[in-house]
Amino acid sequence: MKKLNIGLVGYGFMGRTHSNAFTQVNNFFDLEYRPVLKAVCARDAEKARAFATKWGYESIETDWRKLIERDDIDVIDIAAPNNVHAEIAIAAAKAGKMILCEKPLALNGPEAEKMVAAVTKAKVPNMVWYNYRRVPAVTLAKQLIDEGRLGKIFHYRAKFLQDWTISKDLPQGGAGLWRLDAKVAGSGVTGDLLAHCIDTAMWLNGSIDTVTATTETFIKERKHTLTGKVEKVGIDDASLFLARFSNGSLATFESTRYARGHKALYTFEINGEHASIFWDLHDLHRLQYFDHRDQGAVRGWRSLHITDSDHPYMKNWWVPGLQIGYAETFIHQVADFLQGLSKGKIPGPSFKDGLATDYVTDAVLKSAKTRRWEKVKKIK
Amino acid sequence: MKKLNIGLVGYGFMGRTHSNAFTQVNNFFDLEYRPVLKAVCARDAEKARAFATKWGYESIETDWRKLIERDDIDVIDIAAPNNVHAEIAIAAAKAGKMILCEKPLALNGPEAEKMVAAVTKAKVPNMVWYNYRRVPAVTLAKQLIDEGRLGKIFHYRAKFLQDWTISKDLPQGGAGLWRLDAKVAGSGVTGDLLAHCIDTAMWLNGSIDTVTATTETFIKERKHTLTGKVEKVGIDDASLFLARFSNGSLATFESTRYARGHKALYTFEINGEHASIFWDLHDLHRLQYFDHRDQGAVRGWRSLHITDSDHPYMKNWWVPGLQIGYAETFIHQVADFLQGLSKGKIPGPSFKDGLATDYVTDAVLKSAKTRRWEKVKKIK
Amino acid sequence: MKKLNIGLVGYGFMGRTHSNAFTQVNNFFDLEYRPVLKAVCARDAEKARAFATKWGYESIETDWRKLIERDDIDVIDIAAPNNVHAEIAIAAAKAGKMILCEKPLALNGPEAEKMVAAVTKAKVPNMVWYNYRRVPAVTLAKQLIDEGRLGKIFHYRAKFLQDWTISKDLPQGGAGLWRLDAKVAGSGVTGDLLAHCIDTAMWLNGSIDTVTATTETFIKERKHTLTGKVEKVGIDDASLFLARFSNGSLATFESTRYARGHKALYTFEINGEHASIFWDLHDLHRLQYFDHRDQGAVRGWRSLHITDSDHPYMKNWWVPGLQIGYAETFIHQVADFLQGLSKGKIPGPSFKDGLATDYVTDAVLKSAKTRRWEKVKKIK
Amino acid sequence: MKKLNIGLVGYGFMGRTHSNAFTQVNNFFDLEYRPVLKAVCARDAEKARAFATKWGYESIETDWRKLIERDDIDVIDIAAPNNVHAEIAIAAAKAGKMILCEKPLALNGPEAEKMVAAVTKAKVPNMVWYNYRRVPAVTLAKQLIDEGRLGKIFHYRAKFLQDWTISKDLPQGGAGLWRLDAKVAGSGVTGDLLAHCIDTAMWLNGSIDTVTATTETFIKERKHTLTGKVEKVGIDDASLFLARFSNGSLATFESTRYARGHKALYTFEINGEHASIFWDLHDLHRLQYFDHRDQGAVRGWRSLHITDSDHPYMKNWWVPGLQIGYAETFIHQVADFLQGLSKGKIPGPSFKDGLATDYVTDAVLKSAKTRRWEKVKKIK
Repeated sequence: MKKLNIGLVGYGFMGRTHSNAFTQVNNFFDLEYRPVLKAVCARDAEKARAFATKWGYESIETDWRKLIERDDIDVIDIAAPNNVHAEIAIAAAKAGKMILCEKPLALNGPEAEKMVAAVTKAKVPNMVWYNYRRVPAVTLAKQLIDEGRLGKIFHYRAKFLQDWTISKDLPQGGAGLWRLDAKVAGSGVTGDLLAHCIDTAMWLNGSIDTVTATTETFIKERKHTLTGKVEKVGIDDASLFLARFSNGSLATFESTRYARGHKALYTFEINGEHASIFWDLHDLHRLQYFDHRDQGAVRGWRSLHITDSDHPYMKNWWVPGLQIGYAETFIHQVADFLQGLSKGKIPGPSFKDGLATDYVTDAVLKSAKTRRWEKVKKIK
Repeated sequence: MKKLNIGLVGYGFMGRTHSNAFTQVNNFFDLEYRPVLKAVCARDAEKARAFATKWGYESIETDWRKLIERDDIDVIDIAAPNNVHAEIAIAAAKAGKMILCEKPLALNGPEAEKMVAAVTKAKVPNMVWYNYRRVPAVTLAKQLIDEGRLGKIFHYRAKFLQDWTISKDLPQGGAGLWRLDAKVAGSGVTGDLLAHCIDTAMWLNGSIDTVTATTETFIKERKHTLTGKVEKVGIDDASLFLARFSNGSLATFESTRYARGHKALYTFEINGEHASIFWDLHDLHRLQYFDHRDQGAVRGWRSLHITDSDHPYMKNWWVPGLQIGYAETFIHQVADFLQGLSKGKIPGPSFKDGLATDYVTDAVLKSAKTRRWEKVKKIK
Repeated sequence: MKKLNIGLVGYGFMGRTHSNAFTQVNNFFDLEYRPVLKAVCARDAEKARAFATKWGYESIETDWRKLIERDDIDVIDIAAPNNVHAEIAIAAAKAGKMILCEKPLALNGPEAEKMVAAVTKAKVPNMVWYNYRRVPAVTLAKQLIDEGRLGKIFHYRAKFLQDWTISKDLPQGGAGLWRLDAKVAGSGVTGDLLAHCIDTAMWLNGSIDTVTATTETFIKERKHTLTGKVEKVGIDDASLFLARFSNGSLATFESTRYARGHKALYTFEINGEHASIFWDLHDLHRLQYFDHRDQGAVRGWRSLHITDSDHPYMKNWWVPGLQIGYAETFIHQVADFLQGLSKGKIPGPSFKDGLATDYVTDAVLKSAKTRRWEKVKKIK
Repeated sequence: MKKLNIGLVGYGFMGRTHSNAFTQVNNFFDLEYRPVLKAVCARDAEKARAFATKWGYESIETDWRKLIERDDIDVIDIAAPNNVHAEIAIAAAKAGKMILCEKPLALNGPEAEKMVAAVTKAKVPNMVWYNYRRVPAVTLAKQLIDEGRLGKIFHYRAKFLQDWTISKDLPQGGAGLWRLDAKVAGSGVTGDLLAHCIDTAMWLNGSIDTVTATTETFIKERKHTLTGKVEKVGIDDASLFLARFSNGSLATFESTRYARGHKALYTFEINGEHASIFWDLHDLHRLQYFDHRDQGAVRGWRSLHITDSDHPYMKNWWVPGLQIGYAETFIHQVADFLQGLSKGKIPGPSFKDGLATDYVTDAVLKSAKTRRWEKVKKIK
């Protein structure tokens, strides 16, 4: 088995999901490669060391530049906040490293373009952690669409609803709260949550042409954990847009962190001429499927329990009826990446795919300001 | 249009559902007959009069014997408590009246046998108000089974759960509470709720051969509204049994008024070789259907919304998506009864069907005492 | 009991729902007034007569002007297509008749303004049949909001999805299909379905300030049943918009007849600071309610089965657990109208409310053309 | 960190779930002990070696006696078929090893008694892999009951429904199919599936006094993979029983592998005076909770999404809204076992608990033969 040495940047929530995937993938998938947890990098050496001990990283670094310089690192895995993705990724590409980068790819399209240029020039394998593509139910949705079961698509609707920032007392900035700091996160729910919805949507339904959007910041000021002062909130708390896809279908997209009762309710529905599909992250192991070609009197939405061996990825897990969870989506992504290495063809979402999503979020944020329909920039 | 003169005995909850059905049926079904609300009978003249005014009955009686004697009455509709069903029905049969009788048919099998004998001898049209057969979803279940879609049946399970008698302060006896008085009701949930489950079950899945049961009275004494004294409770609060059907399938049946959170949760599920069906009174306009012959990856429980014109009875109502409720099941029964009159063939549930159910409840109550499996008596 | 003589214009789907309400209301509600089915009016005398026989109307008219002239008519009930609402209502108002009018009130705001002016001048009781306000679950939603349980509102989302016009072979125009004929219907789903969503939304959440919309006609040409020719389709098949309410909340609205798998899926959700509410017409007897003030570990969406005596309207029906359906919403509206007559204060939705909704649909249709945010006209 | 050397017997489905738990537990729980995958034992050396490579076991054995003899093994983990549990466990106890044993503990009560005697005498830590106790939703159910939220318990109902053996062509015996071979499995669904239901039930609701049961073998003969001959099927395909708990509550239990449409539908519901609970393995991350003390009009079943940090075990995983799956229940059990070692008090289910469950299944199988109510033997 070939070893693939991982150098992880970041040790937060995403550092954990990635590490978990690297350590488990070979227990469930037959692969030519085995990831080796070579080093974790964080500015705080103590925290890096604690993380390394926990997850079994062989060494630590406190400067990501040193990590990239190391010859014993094959893959740079970027699990640091959004504002450092570009710098790290471009340096890693120059050093000829493979790159796995957390989403969103960059703070905005122009920054992401440079990242795409870097990996293209360096010809290094690259991937963005839009993990929801690899929920088995979502992958099945993709298969059903590709088989033509839905026919012409009329409608797409997606939302990602949370409620964890409703309290005025929640500060911005700092460890778990950098997502509320516009300087670090780039945007609010648009880049954090809608980006997921957009990546899935374009994967399933093709490119988006135009959007009209509105955003809102419900709580205008919050204490900043780093400065200790009450500061203006720069992120969008809610972001809603209408869209038209290139295939003629119409869409609504919505994201907010002010939807009481929803923790991470990412849902999408797609309505085609013949069939429709609905999925919901809160019950991620199910797919709702309606097929109009079913016989009339017994036609209805089918609740598919995606735990059978003929469902995507599921033959590698347990037995029918026994569900997997969120963490496994990252394992699937690593498995596909490693198989891609063997085959010489890395599957998406590539940096280019990440750029395409950033173009949409750029257009959304722009439309929210111009109050007009905006065209989405296309990758040449 | 032919008139069919109705004489109703009783003015309670069931008196209302029946009256509602008689008054509405011709607005929704094209029929040769039109029910005419000729007379309502109750011991309390004032209450009878108020009911007559409300629903449009032309006259009242305070003695059901007089009602039966009247020449202008075609149908005696019995909506009085269980302990008077037999006497009234037998007298009505002798007088040559058609009879619609609330369920359960009688206090027990032997009493019901006499009622069957009476209507058989008199050759009068007869029906028992087991209304749930005519929920469109339940009727569709019957059709799917009759079409052979389920194949060999392995399992049947039904329950009817309520929670309205948990309070110790609830009295027994009197107007709305005669269901807690064993002398009037005959039994508790066995005759009141399980009887519904059993009627549906035998209609869908054939006869029941043997049962083993247990019953319980959780609150042993309650104040009686008529005597004003605390008296022993004679009814069963809960009744559970296992059964074997003649077709070899196995069943669980359960009913209780001590299932917190359930108001009238009548559900049944039937598992066949090829397909399964589930229904639930709390969402009566839906039928859950699973067909194993669906293609593997998209096989799942279908939630059928029974509001289409190709669903039983539904072309007579509104448009797809718009549901009907509980009251309509009685309208369907009247419609079928009237069509049966025109065709010369009254559909079930007949008094014989009601007797068959009483035989099962008799066996259940007996088994709860003998603590043995008991054979269910069969109609010769 | 006081008699209230009804003169109905139209005999289609809505003519049936109204007639059913008039005939049933006194069986379930204690009221001072009793509607009398005095006359039904339709151009086709034969059809009018058949309808009158079915529902018990005492007479027929073939010209609505004659109906309005009759002294024995107290209420003109308009259940005819949208393009004749204004003319009939204005004439009826001049004649001093009370008016019940199907929704949408008019083809557009300016036309509706004249209707409001007419009933205002004539001081006649008036109401629009936005029946969904009187689904008990929706009425309960209103009560919960009015009690302040939700706190500050952040989000509103509504959709009304159908799939009955996907086939290219479906013609436009004629009896059941005038909703596809722009000349008769005014607009497509915007006036037919979104109008319902908007009426409920403004009732629950206050007025809408601005909208940005897009509409689409998927099938551009359809055979017209009256001309026999293939003609351009003038209606919108789908209509989506983003909105901002006066209270600062953000909204998505969507309606389409191209959402495969949905028959009449009208849903709304409202997210407040403390609590959220979700409702769905396909299971209209349920309300989903989430209250953040519930204790942490047992906090969750509650599925309320709206069949208890302490739920709006429900003490008038059956017993807990037994659901009502679509038709009862019209009965509730008639009951409230009749109680309003007794109290001298007619409850909404009034013609003014209907105008407010038309102003929103006007803004939606305008925005779909201008591709800009449009302000919604407000009633002075 | 202290090392705890694991010796695993068996390499099938359960061997995988246990190994996965051992390798992951320290990544998610802060523990004093770290399991070390010292050796896996299987008769087939090649398969043992492949399994060891996959999961990282340091060595293999082909005779479990040798494994037990090894000084470098602290824990014997029995993941072999039921018919060898007793022999291995008793030998392991004599050798002073800690023991983790798959469920059911033994082929029957008398055999299990010897195992209990052995571990009692040897005073070795012991546990049975009834993993469903450690689904967070189930653990929460236990907490809610222990807090007295349900009040007096009236009803318990559990079922475990599958459909994978309906085909007549499925053979018995051999690798994945030993569960159909009575000699190896002891019984059919009674020991395989009902045992899970019984373990949870007694944990939540106390001991079971008496049962009346029926079992069925739908397919009487199947080809045996080892002999190649068609042989009589000795297992029960379905097993149903009624029970009375010591606390006075009544119960239905049912298990089958002939319930079309259900893969592993383990559900339980418990109805108390004040509150009720429902859980379902097909959506294991949810708990349905009804509390009658909620205010009337907003009282309903709450769908709890068990992914918050104040839910059992969940603070160790991801963020609210992101679900875990089946595999994590084994991780929880290992975590609790290791914490128990540190505290000197091993949590259940102990071998004694496993024996208690075997006593119930013995009574069930006996009742199915005697056709009488049978008392359940109690542990002295």
